[in-house]
This record gives sequence, C-alpha cells and structure tokens, in this order.
Amino acid sequence: MEKLQDHPFHIFMNPRSVAVIGASRKTGKGSFNVIEVMRQFGFGGRIYPVNPFAEEIAGIPCHREVEEIGDAVDLAVVATPREQVLDVLRASARAGVRGAVVVTQGFADADPEGGSLQALAAGIARDTGMRILGPNTLGVLDAFTGFTTSFMPLSREPAPVAVICQSGVFFVGAAVFTGMLGKGIDIGNGCDLDCADALEYFGRDDQVKVIFLHIEGLRQGKRFHQVAARVARVKPVIALKTGRSALGARAAASHSGSMAGQHALYEAAFRQSGILSVEDQEAVSDFTKGFIHCGPMRGNRVGVITFTGGGGIIAADMIEKFGLQVAPLSPGTTGAIKDLSPPWMPIGNPLDIWPALMKHGMNHIYEAALRAVLQDPGVDGVICIAIAPNLPDDDFLNATEVIRETAVALPGKPVVAWLYGPNQDAVSKSIEAGGRVLAFPSLSRAARTLGALYRRSAFLGGVAPPA
Amino acid sequence: MEKLQDHPFHIFMNPRSVAVIGASRKTGKGSFNVIEVMRQFGFGGRIYPVNPFAEEIAGIPCHREVEEIGDAVDLAVVATPREQVLDVLRASARAGVRGAVVVTQGFADADPEGGSLQALAAGIARDTGMRILGPNTLGVLDAFTGFTTSFMPLSREPAPVAVICQSGVFFVGAAVFTGMLGKGIDIGNGCDLDCADALEYFGRDDQVKVIFLHIEGLRQGKRFHQVAARVARVKPVIALKTGRSALGARAAASHSGSMAGQHALYEAAFRQSGILSVEDQEAVSDFTKGFIHCGPMRGNRVGVITFTGGGGIIAADMIEKFGLQVAPLSPGTTGAIKDLSPPWMPIGNPLDIWPALMKHGMNHIYEAALRAVLQDPGVDGVICIAIAPNLPDDDFLNATEVIRETAVALPGKPVVAWLYGPNQDAVSKSIEAGGRVLAFPSLSRAARTLGALYRRSAFLGGVAPPA
Repeated sequence: MEKLQDHPFHIFMNPRSVAVIGASRKTGKGSFNVIEVMRQFGFGGRIYPVNPFAEEIAGIPCHREVEEIGDAVDLAVVATPREQVLDVLRASARAGVRGAVVVTQGFADADPEGGSLQALAAGIARDTGMRILGPNTLGVLDAFTGFTTSFMPLSREPAPVAVICQSGVFFVGAAVFTGMLGKGIDIGNGCDLDCADALEYFGRDDQVKVIFLHIEGLRQGKRFHQVAARVARVKPVIALKTGRSALGARAAASHSGSMAGQHALYEAAFRQSGILSVEDQEAVSDFTKGFIHCGPMRGNRVGVITFTGGGGIIAADMIEKFGLQVAPLSPGTTGAIKDLSPPWMPIGNPLDIWPALMKHGMNHIYEAALRAVLQDPGVDGVICIAIAPNLPDDDFLNATEVIRETAVALPGKPVVAWLYGPNQDAVSKSIEAGGRVLAFPSLSRAARTLGALYRRSAFLGGVAPPA
Repeated sequence: MEKLQDHPFHIFMNPRSVAVIGASRKTGKGSFNVIEVMRQFGFGGRIYPVNPFAEEIAGIPCHREVEEIGDAVDLAVVATPREQVLDVLRASARAGVRGAVVVTQGFADADPEGGSLQALAAGIARDTGMRILGPNTLGVLDAFTGFTTSFMPLSREPAPVAVICQSGVFFVGAAVFTGMLGKGIDIGNGCDLDCADALEYFGRDDQVKVIFLHIEGLRQGKRFHQVAARVARVKPVIALKTGRSALGARAAASHSGSMAGQHALYEAAFRQSGILSVEDQEAVSDFTKGFIHCGPMRGNRVGVITFTGGGGIIAADMIEKFGLQVAPLSPGTTGAIKDLSPPWMPIGNPLDIWPALMKHGMNHIYEAALRAVLQDPGVDGVICIAIAPNLPDDDFLNATEVIRETAVALPGKPVVAWLYGPNQDAVSKSIEAGGRVLAFPSLSRAARTLGALYRRSAFLGGVAPPA
C-alpha cells in the first residue's frame, strides 16, 4: 500500500503553514472567523491572514496578498467573494502554495456564471499542480492532529471515524450522523479533488477504522468504483446517497453542482464494491457504532433473551426483516432455562426468561441464559431485551450489570441490547460502558445493525454456512 | 353514541372495590405486589386481599376466599397458580364480582392443558355474565382516575393517549412506544374481552384523543373491523401488528395464544377501516406525538426551510419517500428570501437561507422565511431545519425561539423541526415547549410523521386537491 504522506490530501490535513485569504475582520462569538476556529481546534502551525483592508486579524499581522507572505505556505483557505477566487488561486499557485480550500459559495452550486468560474478553477489545478478542495466547502478536519479549515466551530474528538461529504451538515451535525468524527473531508462541489481521492486517503490512514461517505453525485464513476472496491476490503465504508428523489436530485444539482444520477446505478456500484448503503441518519450512527465496537458476526443466526414475550415477537419480526434468522437453540441451551421455568412454559428462541426470573431472581437467570446462548455454537449474535427502570428506585429490575459482565466474560459474538422503559438513555449508556454491549433505542435498529455486521462478514468471507 | 359507563370495560377501569385473589405476602421493593402498586398509583377504593395463608397483606386483613368478603366487590384481580384459576373465577361470579382480571400465565400461551383451561375460563364468562380480562395480562391502567391492576410499578401521567395491547411491554415500556400513557388495557390472551371491546371503549372515552393498538392476533376479525371503522372516524388509531414474520407468528401463538394470521389480511383490514398501520416503535411515538399536538394537514405539499443545502436535499428525499411532495413555493415566498440573498443564490424549495442569514442575521431571516412559507397558500406543512448548537456558547446559532414564536403567531399548518448538532435533545425539548412545533431526531422521522398527518386528513376528507 502506498504511503499516506504521498497522497494529495496529506498536505490538506497536515499543513505546517496556512494562508487564510479573504479572512474576516470580525472576531469573537458569532463571527465564524476561520482563524479563531483553527486555533481553538488546536492548530499550532503558522497562520497568515490575507486581507488588503486589515492591519491585523485575531492578533496576527495581515498581508495584502498571498504572494507578499514570503515564507513557504502549504495550504491556502480561500474565503473571498467569488469574483476574486480565480485570481487568488492563480496567485497562490505562483506563491508555491500546495493546496487550496475554496470555502466560497456561488459556483456550480449557483448560476451558469458560477459554473464557468468553477471550470476555470479546475483548469488552474490541472495547469499548476496546486490541488483544490471545493469550492463550497468547510474543507477538512483532523481531530488527531488538531487541524481544521471549518469556519463553523467544531468539537475535537479523536475518534477512529472519518467522514467524507458534500455538505457541512455532516461536520456540524456529526453528533446526529456518525456520532463521532475524528477526521473529515468536505468535498463541496469537487472541482478537483473528489470523493474517490478522499476515500483513497482515508483507506490508507490507519487511525481511521470506519469511513462514512455522503454522496450527492459523482463525476468519476469508474475511478470511484475502483477505489471503493479496494478500500471496502480493508475497512467498512457506509454510504448515504442523497438526491434520491426526482426533486432531491434537482436540489443536489443546485447545491453542490452534482449530477445525482440514477439511484439504482449507485446502489449497484455500492453493492459491487462492498460499500454498505444506508437510507437514513439512524443507520449511519448505528452502523458506525457497530463497526467500531463489535467484532465480526460470522453467521446470521441470532439468539434473543427477553423479559417480555411481546418484545421477543417484535425481535423475531425484525430479525427476519433485516436478513437474519432466529437461531434454533441447542437442547443444552434451552434446557438450562427450562429447568428453571414453570413446567408449562414453552422455552425456545426468543428465550422468554420472565417466569424463571420471577422465581429465581434476575441476576442468576439472566447470567445463565446469556452464558448458554453465547456458548451455543448455533448462535452468531445476541439481542438482549431488558427493562430500563427508573433508577435507583427499581434497581432490582436493572439487568445492565449482569448483561455487561457476562458478555465481557464471553467475548467474540456481537451482543446488542434493547432496554425499554422510562430510563432508556441512562441505562443504555451504562450498559455500553466498555463497548462490549451496544444498546439501541428500538429492536428495529438493534436488528438492523446486526444485519449490517453480518453483511460485512459475508462480504469479507468466512461466515458460517446457512443452517 | 352509547354511554361510556354502559360499556363492559367501565367497571374494569372504575371499580369502587377490588379483591386481589392470590395476593402475594411479599411487600416492598422488588416484590411486585399488586396491592402496593395499586395504592401507589392512587386507588382510593376498598381493597380485599384474598390469601388463605396470610393474616394481613400490606396492612389489610386477608380473606380466605372471595365469597367470605361479604361486601360488594366490583373487580377481582386473580394471581393464583393456574390450577386454581377456574375455581376462583366460579367463586368470584357467585360472590357477585362483575369483572375479573386474570394475571396468571400458563394458559393458551403455554401448553395444551393451558389451552383447555382457558377455554373453560371463557365458558365461565359466558355462563355467568362476569366479564374476564386475560389471562396472562397486566390488566388495566387509568392515570386519570388513578387505578391500575398492574403488578409492575408504573408512573401515572394523565395523557390523552390510550394503549390497547397483548403484552405488558407496552405498559412498562410506554416511554419508548407511545411516549405517554394515560389509559391502558392489556388484552393478554383475550379469552373473553378482546381488542375490539377495548377499542370500542376508548372510542367512546372523550379523555382519549389517540389510541395505540398492539395486535399479535385477532379471533373476531369481523367485529374488530366494524368497531375499528367506527372509531377511526372519531379519533386516530395507530396499529402495530407483530408476529409478522413466520417465526414471529409462531412466537405469538405461544405468547398470547394468538393466531397471528397473514400479514396482508391485517394490512388490508387496517387500511379499509382507517387505522394507521406502523412498522416500528419510532413510528408509534412519532405519530402519537403528531396527532396529539398537530392540527390536520390539509394537503401533501411541504415547505422546507434550511440552514444547510445538504440537509434540504435529504428533506426532499424523505418528503417524496413518505408520499408527500415538495411544495412549489409562490413567487412572493421565494422573493422574500431572494431579495436578502446573494444574487447568484438559487432560491426555491427547500429554501436555503444560509447565505441570507450570514448577511442579515438569523432571527430576521428565519422569521421572514417561516412567515412567508406558512402564509403561502401552496404549503400544507413545514419542515424547519436548524442547528442544535452547544448551548449557551453558540447561542447565536440557536433558532429555537424564532421558529417557535413565528409558528405560534401563525397557527394552523403543522410545523416540524429537525435540529442537527451536538445538543439535539435539549434544543428539541426547548422548541417543543407549548406543543406548536414538534422536533424529530431525523428528517426521515419528521417527514414520515407529516405523511401520517396527511394520510389521516385524506382519510377524513377535505384535503386540498393535488397541485
């Protein structure tokens, strides 16, 4: 594999010096000043504000133009009005700048004139060798090194998740999409560097364990396909293709200048290259969490342990809906609970332990059940259903600890939980401590995530033969 | 319409005196003592514990059997071992008890013997006129009057939402299904009183504005259909049919003794009677919230106001996915924002106000946009997209107040919001204060809820003709 530092994106993520061209004189709260955000995020390299109308910005002396700086500049962040962007890019290239992030909107995302300007910008990249990210982008973010070009304040969390997107909403709203955001590249309109380049870069980056890809539209379909097929074998790639609807596609054309194209073609390309295509925000966060914390799911057979028969039925519905099967449990597994249940109680999968635990206590029964199910060779993953009571009043109903500890003692198979009741958020957080058991707000989302883990394992090979 | 108090369920929800037969001697935390839960929930009527082995339970003198009580008993709660249930029911009927809740498991939910016992219980109801709820049920709950037969502790919240279910998970886990639970009937195995009876009862109850129905299986399809068609014209009925999968159906048979039957038949029946069928837990809580707080959505044309072009595209995708359309905005509406945006900015629906608000400030622009869209005669409902920043640091980005106040000033059309960012929960809660604007964690769920509101209006008639 080629080296990370040889990739064109390396200088965007690891510059030693940055010129901010068209830097705003406004500073402080609500000013969206790139220089301030850059420093707050942790950038320790040299920053050169460029603004002919200012003496200094955020305490740093200003230059009238990029060629006046004199020192070597790795990266230019361009935030001038669109009319000046081409001149600024040419000047940056002359000054030896290696990469430029064009934040400015109003190119292929706007009117025909913007489209022409963008084509000329692409020409500058081709002619000079200076690579361009954007226009219409927040640029990049690397929470490990502490660098960003975003003018929107972002929190810094070195998580092993990289985001590639065509809209800043996935940076600013990372909390509701991937949940964590360690590195990010906003392709914007993608006049030069595009999704395939970003995917290739994060594919090489060992700090990145999962890649989330937001695509409005692609221009270089073939190269994307080749890169995707290579990267998807190394790490999970989750894709959300937007602009699916007729109107969404038109909106995408006017947002990032993308050709959203036919949805079915994208789906086929994702499938062939091993990319996991998702349809909604919840799948992005659930699958990201699943891939970060769970090992492989080596078959599609799911064991369900439940406090509630009604919940077990929902689990069975969802397991089938998401391409999995309710595991036929071995006689040893069911026997362990049958002996502790009333004689009339039908024991199978879903494994309804309520009557047994009413008799013998929760910790004893939940541990026996989870242990037996995890050790059953016919089970590839487990869904645990338990109550999320109002703590600490009903703590005797809280199965958090026994589930977590039993699962930790028997590593290997994915264990997910659905905790129903008035205190779902807090109890879910508590069961997730350590990352062995993952909690989901609904059985639908729990089962869908196991389905994604299984599809990933099936794609990589080495899953159990169908029962 | 017939009177509420003439309905067989009336005595179950409003008893003056209750015998608890097979009352447990264990009291205190973790004992699941029905008498204690009943009192804590607020029941002020007379309670008669019946247990031949105890002198008193929870401070109340015990009776050896129900016929010894002497006083009139409206309701019996039966929690004896299953072998004693038939005798207890016969004795209760002789003692003049008007209704019995059979909590005990082990009937049609268990083995063939349990099935026979259940058939005999049903015979007792027919022969004596004493109505039976269950077996295998938590019974009832009425947070308005403060009565429940549940042995699981429940919080009391007089919300205008009634739940009819075949599993206690919808009582105990109400927080994650309907979100609120003012009244509930757990049909259990339904040997006598069934879903149709409960639906009829809540249909008559003016304190109930929305009914959620969980169905594993029905026996009296025709009667259900008739009642449902009548009730659905009066108030929204949301149904979650479980046991959809082959295995789920088998599990339902062993859980509540239900014949889950063919999914398509249920779907057809729901559609014909005007019941809104849902597939997952999230739809239950979202639609309940939508019907409680929103007025009718008189057409399917949705206006979208957004901070983010990328988010607007997702909104457009979801609007089409859920049977709605992106409203073509009138020239007056787009003009209001076009004049405040850079000249190159394409202005349409979704209405991307980011460049305008960067120039003119958030409150001014968001108010102008929402006002114009709400007053546009071509718009039937609105999705507002805004950031959920880390408060109070980034409070200048918080559109909560302006959205809420503008919507309150222009009542009528449903307004839903998607707030993306690190502080979604708190900002969502704040925008929902007063109930005029509803927030959803994803655009998918926001659009799906508007879709449900529209389908309800279309069912009742009087929606706008298609554009």
